[in-house]
Amino acid sequence: MQVLSGKEVSSFVKDRVKGQVLKLKEQGLQPGLAVVIIGDDPASHVYVNSKVKTCEELGIYSIKEQLPSETSQEEVLKVVRELNNNPKIHGILVQSPPPKHIDERTIIETISPEKDVDCFHPQNVGNMLIGDEDGFVPCTPAGVIEILKYYQLKTAGKHAVVLGRSNIVGKPMVALLARRGDYADCTVTICHSRTQNLEEITKQADVLIAAIGKPEFVTADMVKDGAVVVDVGINRIDAPEKKRGFRLVGDVAYEEVASKASAITPVPGGVGPMTIAMLMQNTITACCQQNNTEIPEG
Amino acid sequence: MQVLSGKEVSSFVKDRVKGQVLKLKEQGLQPGLAVVIIGDDPASHVYVNSKVKTCEELGIYSIKEQLPSETSQEEVLKVVRELNNNPKIHGILVQSPPPKHIDERTIIETISPEKDVDCFHPQNVGNMLIGDEDGFVPCTPAGVIEILKYYQLKTAGKHAVVLGRSNIVGKPMVALLARRGDYADCTVTICHSRTQNLEEITKQADVLIAAIGKPEFVTADMVKDGAVVVDVGINRIDAPEKKRGFRLVGDVAYEEVASKASAITPVPGGVGPMTIAMLMQNTITACCQQNNTEIPEG
Repeated sequence: MQVLSGKEVSSFVKDRVKGQVLKLKEQGLQPGLAVVIIGDDPASHVYVNSKVKTCEELGIYSIKEQLPSETSQEEVLKVVRELNNNPKIHGILVQSPPPKHIDERTIIETISPEKDVDCFHPQNVGNMLIGDEDGFVPCTPAGVIEILKYYQLKTAGKHAVVLGRSNIVGKPMVALLARRGDYADCTVTICHSRTQNLEEITKQADVLIAAIGKPEFVTADMVKDGAVVVDVGINRIDAPEKKRGFRLVGDVAYEEVASKASAITPVPGGVGPMTIAMLMQNTITACCQQNNTEIPEG
Repeated sequence: MQVLSGKEVSSFVKDRVKGQVLKLKEQGLQPGLAVVIIGDDPASHVYVNSKVKTCEELGIYSIKEQLPSETSQEEVLKVVRELNNNPKIHGILVQSPPPKHIDERTIIETISPEKDVDCFHPQNVGNMLIGDEDGFVPCTPAGVIEILKYYQLKTAGKHAVVLGRSNIVGKPMVALLARRGDYADCTVTICHSRTQNLEEITKQADVLIAAIGKPEFVTADMVKDGAVVVDVGINRIDAPEKKRGFRLVGDVAYEEVASKASAITPVPGGVGPMTIAMLMQNTITACCQQNNTEIPEG
């Protein structure tokens, strides 16, 4: 059984991005990412700070636009429009979730599609579905594919089962796995809360991707011998013995499933670290596309 | 075994559209559709004439822009832009396939998304995937759902298997069936040319949708007893005994599969007639959205 270390793969991706930044700088270009955060949700601030810090590490220029929680929708849109017009910025993301009075959808649709490095804009989502291989890909599903590539776990012809139909993970995951390519070309099944006989279906999976947000939901009896298991979930469960009072688990009961799987991502240290790495990669893509230059090898 | 008559359902939809047109006319609005055809492909002309004729039958204003096959890309784009700006036109479609020197994708992306009644523009495709229930839906998959609704074949919780991953049918079909709702909420599996053990998968389908363009590919041994079978294929096969030398068959071996299915669409007279009916329905939606008025009941 192979542990698929997202920590290792994300380091690999970040090293590649670092190299790409250096090459772009030789051409007089510096990729730039703007992160907009509204309000003071502590978890969101942790994510945003981590994104900004990773930019610094990799040589990517970054702006952190911190807006108070009472900022109006119109003010947020104004900030986004300014960033759309800022030539030093190639990627823009607005940290989710925004405060309740903000319509997230309108914000996302205001981000210029070529700067939408989260790949949440409908135009980029559509391009992903109908097969634009050069376009953006949402960061978490892109990270899953990157893990498969790194460990050379070719999936063509295999049956992939995706648990969860979120817009951020489940749906784009299906689109990517059903594309053509060695690390795609899967028969793909999407399951969700309304799925009947779930176990019968998950047991058919050569590649099982769990993204439902239910702690340790996938148990050994749901998994085929030798399956590749990718756990996208990150859940807090009570752990009074821990100093912070909780521990992080995935959507997969790791120990028991690991004993059946041929390969599995742990939590933490699996898919988690990939999201930021792929965000950095998308920022490189954005910078190159906006400057009409090829993406360097890195 | 129930024969799902697309002829009947399309008449029902067209009657509804006719009623909606009358109500919109009372408000001083007439829905308008422009069909652009480049070149002289005979099959394309048949389709386009049929669309124009249906518009006339239902009271929808229509323009047929017939361009010679040597028309340049720029000229086609000019025509599309004029139609984008024509307030009498609410829907625009460019008949596929255009001549080889025309980049279809650029044409589609030039159509204003709010007039893209084929739902081929990436922005509309994206909105469909991430769940905008008010947006356009591509005509053929929309027609399949409409048939299920008409015959009250609720699919929630059922396993739907889609054969084919085309941008026009397979991929949007998966997106629609995986949405929430009585005629959606399916566990959905998408199969294609790289799928292994296809028969094992199709046999699990409560709802089987064939859209691969292979004559009579789906045979009885691939189908579960009592399945609902929807045949999107329209293939010509040689039939020397026929005056025209061919006959039309679907992707499903109708006679033998019909004996196992609980319900099945025939070819012709199944999904085929639905495409134009849903195009007309999308034109109503477009007209109402552009005029900021509610879609009348019809």
